[in-house]
Amino acid sequence: MTDASTTASSAATPSSAIAPVVRADGRAPDELRPISITRGWSAQAEGSALIEFGNTRVLCTASLTEGVPRWLKGEGRGWATAEYAMLPRATNTRSDRESVKGRIGGRTHEISRLIGRSLRSIIDLKELGENTIVLDCDVLQADGGTRTAAITGAYVALADAVTWARTKKLIKPTAKPLKDTVSAVSVGIIDGVPMLDLPYVEDARAETDMNVVVTGSGQFVEVQGTAEGVPFNRSELDALLDLALAGTTELAAIQRSTLGEA
Amino acid sequence: MTDASTTASSAATPSSAIAPVVRADGRAPDELRPISITRGWSAQAEGSALIEFGNTRVLCTASLTEGVPRWLKGEGRGWATAEYAMLPRATNTRSDRESVKGRIGGRTHEISRLIGRSLRSIIDLKELGENTIVLDCDVLQADGGTRTAAITGAYVALADAVTWARTKKLIKPTAKPLKDTVSAVSVGIIDGVPMLDLPYVEDARAETDMNVVVTGSGQFVEVQGTAEGVPFNRSELDALLDLALAGTTELAAIQRSTLGEA
Amino acid sequence: MTDASTTASSAATPSSAIAPVVRADGRAPDELRPISITRGWSAQAEGSALIEFGNTRVLCTASLTEGVPRWLKGEGRGWATAEYAMLPRATNTRSDRESVKGRIGGRTHEISRLIGRSLRSIIDLKELGENTIVLDCDVLQADGGTRTAAITGAYVALADAVTWARTKKLIKPTAKPLKDTVSAVSVGIIDGVPMLDLPYVEDARAETDMNVVVTGSGQFVEVQGTAEGVPFNRSELDALLDLALAGTTELAAIQRSTLGEA
Amino acid sequence: MTDASTTASSAATPSSAIAPVVRADGRAPDELRPISITRGWSAQAEGSALIEFGNTRVLCTASLTEGVPRWLKGEGRGWATAEYAMLPRATNTRSDRESVKGRIGGRTHEISRLIGRSLRSIIDLKELGENTIVLDCDVLQADGGTRTAAITGAYVALADAVTWARTKKLIKPTAKPLKDTVSAVSVGIIDGVPMLDLPYVEDARAETDMNVVVTGSGQFVEVQGTAEGVPFNRSELDALLDLALAGTTELAAIQRSTLGEA
Amino acid sequence: MTDASTTASSAATPSSAIAPVVRADGRAPDELRPISITRGWSAQAEGSALIEFGNTRVLCTASLTEGVPRWLKGEGRGWATAEYAMLPRATNTRSDRESVKGRIGGRTHEISRLIGRSLRSIIDLKELGENTIVLDCDVLQADGGTRTAAITGAYVALADAVTWARTKKLIKPTAKPLKDTVSAVSVGIIDGVPMLDLPYVEDARAETDMNVVVTGSGQFVEVQGTAEGVPFNRSELDALLDLALAGTTELAAIQRSTLGEA
Amino acid sequence: MTDASTTASSAATPSSAIAPVVRADGRAPDELRPISITRGWSAQAEGSALIEFGNTRVLCTASLTEGVPRWLKGEGRGWATAEYAMLPRATNTRSDRESVKGRIGGRTHEISRLIGRSLRSIIDLKELGENTIVLDCDVLQADGGTRTAAITGAYVALADAVTWARTKKLIKPTAKPLKDTVSAVSVGIIDGVPMLDLPYVEDARAETDMNVVVTGSGQFVEVQGTAEGVPFNRSELDALLDLALAGTTELAAIQRSTLGEA
Repeated sequence: MTDASTTASSAATPSSAIAPVVRADGRAPDELRPISITRGWSAQAEGSALIEFGNTRVLCTASLTEGVPRWLKGEGRGWATAEYAMLPRATNTRSDRESVKGRIGGRTHEISRLIGRSLRSIIDLKELGENTIVLDCDVLQADGGTRTAAITGAYVALADAVTWARTKKLIKPTAKPLKDTVSAVSVGIIDGVPMLDLPYVEDARAETDMNVVVTGSGQFVEVQGTAEGVPFNRSELDALLDLALAGTTELAAIQRSTLGEA
Repeated sequence: MTDASTTASSAATPSSAIAPVVRADGRAPDELRPISITRGWSAQAEGSALIEFGNTRVLCTASLTEGVPRWLKGEGRGWATAEYAMLPRATNTRSDRESVKGRIGGRTHEISRLIGRSLRSIIDLKELGENTIVLDCDVLQADGGTRTAAITGAYVALADAVTWARTKKLIKPTAKPLKDTVSAVSVGIIDGVPMLDLPYVEDARAETDMNVVVTGSGQFVEVQGTAEGVPFNRSELDALLDLALAGTTELAAIQRSTLGEA
Repeated sequence: MTDASTTASSAATPSSAIAPVVRADGRAPDELRPISITRGWSAQAEGSALIEFGNTRVLCTASLTEGVPRWLKGEGRGWATAEYAMLPRATNTRSDRESVKGRIGGRTHEISRLIGRSLRSIIDLKELGENTIVLDCDVLQADGGTRTAAITGAYVALADAVTWARTKKLIKPTAKPLKDTVSAVSVGIIDGVPMLDLPYVEDARAETDMNVVVTGSGQFVEVQGTAEGVPFNRSELDALLDLALAGTTELAAIQRSTLGEA
Repeated sequence: MTDASTTASSAATPSSAIAPVVRADGRAPDELRPISITRGWSAQAEGSALIEFGNTRVLCTASLTEGVPRWLKGEGRGWATAEYAMLPRATNTRSDRESVKGRIGGRTHEISRLIGRSLRSIIDLKELGENTIVLDCDVLQADGGTRTAAITGAYVALADAVTWARTKKLIKPTAKPLKDTVSAVSVGIIDGVPMLDLPYVEDARAETDMNVVVTGSGQFVEVQGTAEGVPFNRSELDALLDLALAGTTELAAIQRSTLGEA
Repeated sequence: MTDASTTASSAATPSSAIAPVVRADGRAPDELRPISITRGWSAQAEGSALIEFGNTRVLCTASLTEGVPRWLKGEGRGWATAEYAMLPRATNTRSDRESVKGRIGGRTHEISRLIGRSLRSIIDLKELGENTIVLDCDVLQADGGTRTAAITGAYVALADAVTWARTKKLIKPTAKPLKDTVSAVSVGIIDGVPMLDLPYVEDARAETDMNVVVTGSGQFVEVQGTAEGVPFNRSELDALLDLALAGTTELAAIQRSTLGEA
Repeated sequence: MTDASTTASSAATPSSAIAPVVRADGRAPDELRPISITRGWSAQAEGSALIEFGNTRVLCTASLTEGVPRWLKGEGRGWATAEYAMLPRATNTRSDRESVKGRIGGRTHEISRLIGRSLRSIIDLKELGENTIVLDCDVLQADGGTRTAAITGAYVALADAVTWARTKKLIKPTAKPLKDTVSAVSVGIIDGVPMLDLPYVEDARAETDMNVVVTGSGQFVEVQGTAEGVPFNRSELDALLDLALAGTTELAAIQRSTLGEA
């Protein structure tokens, strides 16, 4: 963890100075789980990444094709969208497939839309030209934070797909379709203590749960806080935002290093 | 508007001291649209309210029945859920019915889940006993802010359904199933100015858009901020939260007065 | 009630001369419930009406757009269709939404088709030009006779949409797309007595139930009689048709007065 | 055709006395197409009939099983329902299968419900005991009048299934589940002339089209008249009902003779 | 049965020489059920056949239309596809309709695809020109072997549709769209004895079950063997293939004679 | 490759002795692609394996739960079933998700059923006790032979789930639910040469394509041969079966070694 982020999260949890909170997996409250990004895991997609936040494991692929949906034709702009799904046995007990049920559940819809909006926030669709990118985020193993891992991994897949398109001359050499990087992390309050990057056991117990999407330059893209149990006040909200900003700063660094950008 | 909320929103928009921003409908940035709640609009439901935020018009009904879903049986707790929908011609151009399309869209799912979580946050399910409440929020006319109007109106319908249940002895005379009141409002940044309660024309132009759900005692239940166009920074987020708290304070007062509670 | 219609229905129920039948709501067998039509209830649609037959309350909107379905293109004719639906808590107990069930039920299909045919019977599609009208009839509160209220209200919404289209020059100044007016009413035999405009309690007990759609000039458009319990004979059928003609004569007068036509 | 029915239809079409109307297939206006009923066509069902009205060919099966749907349990009554469908190439051009489309169309729903109501009108569900009958009417070849052929054939299948159930002691020897017989026919006005039993070419041209379901004792069960083109008046309605009563009298005789009842 | 096929099947069941196996319906192990093909059973389709393998009865229609699916346009080739379905009461107990369930089952999909592939294997799509053929195989009565009867009957319907198209000049006089004939039969091992053309009672008991599709010239198109109970060895497989080849040789002769080809 | 299998496949392709056929990836006609099985790839499932046949990569999980479907209750037997699916970007171009389309395609259904039957063929459901196993086979990357890789990998996941159940005392210590092992491989004829284990480029060109499922003891479970282009004769069929038996012998050895069984 970098000094900067440690400072940020310490500020958020001043009480930890006195009696340090130790989490089930031994992490400090402001510590991310081990993060791993395997770039190019798929041989088929234009860009891909297998991302792991601890035991959470998401395969992200970026499919880039020429052309745009009919309603965008001739406007000289591109389009990007995302689809999120879980394998039936990604979780501790098996869930029925949405294809078998014949309909997509509300949670899946909600997360797919979140990922799509998050990635579009850093794409300059004009610079992309009339190309379409579909980001598929399939959870192979779930242990909390699947949507934030998906956003973080999807950025890496996206960056590689854009590079591929430049090579293939689908986008101009001078075009800059990516305005910034983007990553996401979950934060929550457990037994009164704000914590970063919740695994399933913590997520299930959290009084308040927040997913925060942040650009590489530290601006907010999405802030989604939910009181699962107890409503939260302004200072709790502030502490959570501090933790999230520190976490996404770290994730942005990992993304850059994965992509070989100093 | 109370002094407190005026102050809060002034602080958020210091530039307005110099050149006051006037909105298309003549409101100040921190002013709600005219709010109207018609309690008991439906003769069939246990509780109901037709709520209007300007031209947005939502019919909220609360259906209370004995018993709970199978997975809750025998636990001595109740259940509450919500469903949101729009009539096909609630909007300026007609949309196809979701029943005709054979599937519910992502937006509908997302809003239904938000309303359900928001209302459950102030319900003490133990005190409710083994009863189930379904809150139906049907948008008859849409002009921005339909989800926040729905939450605000659903609370009134819920309160009346609980009163009805007490009369019918479905819940104990001493039980207090409602821990607090709850209301919601949208806020957004338009041309750099934070504004309260956006109608459709403003919502469509907003750089950032946030829906905030707050209890009567001023605690947050949900904070959902989205950068539609430009990512936002911490101080913008703070200004939006100030505006939202002031707006929900007003809405809570209107709810209380509608329900005849001083 | 006009003398003419009283005479008609008296003829149909001669026994009532001796021992007058009084209905649960105090009406005579040949008397309509209180009818109310609020023209222009929706600010969004080209034409709209909130119609009430007693406690039955249906919101009818007419959406008029340029162009026709593909199979009609280039024939110089317009198209009109209708969709009927009920809010989940329009009725005394809540029904599941058809959008949630993922399919439209037989009753909904049947009534939508009936409304569409009824309105088309008085539309001159040639005179309408290549425009399409969708009539949405959403039952906000149900107490029997929802399909007949829907047809009667849809005519008012339709008439206003046609006026709007003339103003917008979508149809020629000299075109007369509406050949006549149209309204509908239910009739039934209860305990051997033919009755007009059945509320839910009567409808549920009726031996025979008939919905009759009639033009302003007194011609039949649809006659749908069903023996729910006991098959009916020719003279019972005649008595029901007499009642229905008298009822629709009254409804046609209310439609004209609502639309400001002497 | 009996004298009575001839008279009835002559009365309805006085002009035919002067210049007799001859139909495309050579029939008189009040003449049925050749009717054929093959009893027991299916070796699998408890009762079955292949019925032909000219080129219209419908396979009707009656499936009788012990027990009733859950909502009827313990009430000592039976249940009967019907399902209508068309093979994709029953018609002159192929239609997509409803199973492939994933949904049942409005027309199919409407006709299935009509057949079910028609047959239930002559079943004494108390006498049937706690048994369920499903009547499947599958159109193998369509040339107009498929729903009326289906009702007429379904009665024969039903009668045989009841006989089978009596043999199997599923119903008591003294029980009389069938109160009457039932049959149906279409009538319509073509070029101003009321005609009986319309094939497709006539049906497509009819100004008014009516399906009439009548018991063996000549009472009405359903009267469904629709002005496809021109609204109809009371005397036209009367002429159509006369034709239909004459037609169903003939069909009832054919049903009885098929079942070997003098 | 021809000598050749008798020999073939004798070879497959040497033990039957000692203690002849007699099947429930009296047939020898290598004997087909009575086969009947009624050509032109439907008056609507371009080609049709009602085929019976014992009590199994399948209506096959061939719908031939000009033009091809979009993905084939302009390539000068035609297309052929098949759909298989069962009437709900084709079987001994009634099954729910797939249209009512809103989805097609795996078995239906699988058989439809098998029929389509089998027929395409003998069609020269180039010679067919830009025409599309849909083969509908609807099981009116089921007693085992429905998919093999469907393939055998579909060939006859197909042949007649091609003849019709030649008459209508949709295909050139010199074109030969059919390279061969095709038929199919089921074989299986019951109590260790290989048997031909299994009815339902045998099929349900078979240890191994195989469907074999063979051209008129005796080449394999499909071999689908499944060990329902006990895995099978190479010599059992060989015996089954021998039986199947003998059976399809007979079926090909019946097809030729039905079509009036010596 | 073992001597035995080399011999078998040489016999099948005698011509290769003269002019050795070399495949695009350098393999001999009777050579498998590199096979890799990662046992226990998933931390959540009772048994799991990531299996690779060259670039084809399938994640197989076995979910074992107590209890059986309702129709099996109380019979003392277990149940096993399988579901196959592909990630949208497993292939070279992206496919729409079946969950989004709202229905499962025929190919998916067919393969799921094949995997289920294949695994059940070696399970002794009596010995399994009243437990249910669901085998999920999700294709993460596809390059031909996904169904055969799925069957081969599913066996490993199954074996581990059975071991787990024995540890957890869900099955008796003496029970032997697995009667044998099972694996599968594809074979096909390309340019007249029978070949083993086809990658996508070969599969797309094959005249005939066959999937063969074989037990560890060398018995056939499924033989599914399809003439994609040219019907095949008996000797070609024999050559393909020889190749398949050799391939599955190798695969069985790899399964045993993966599971640590000498």
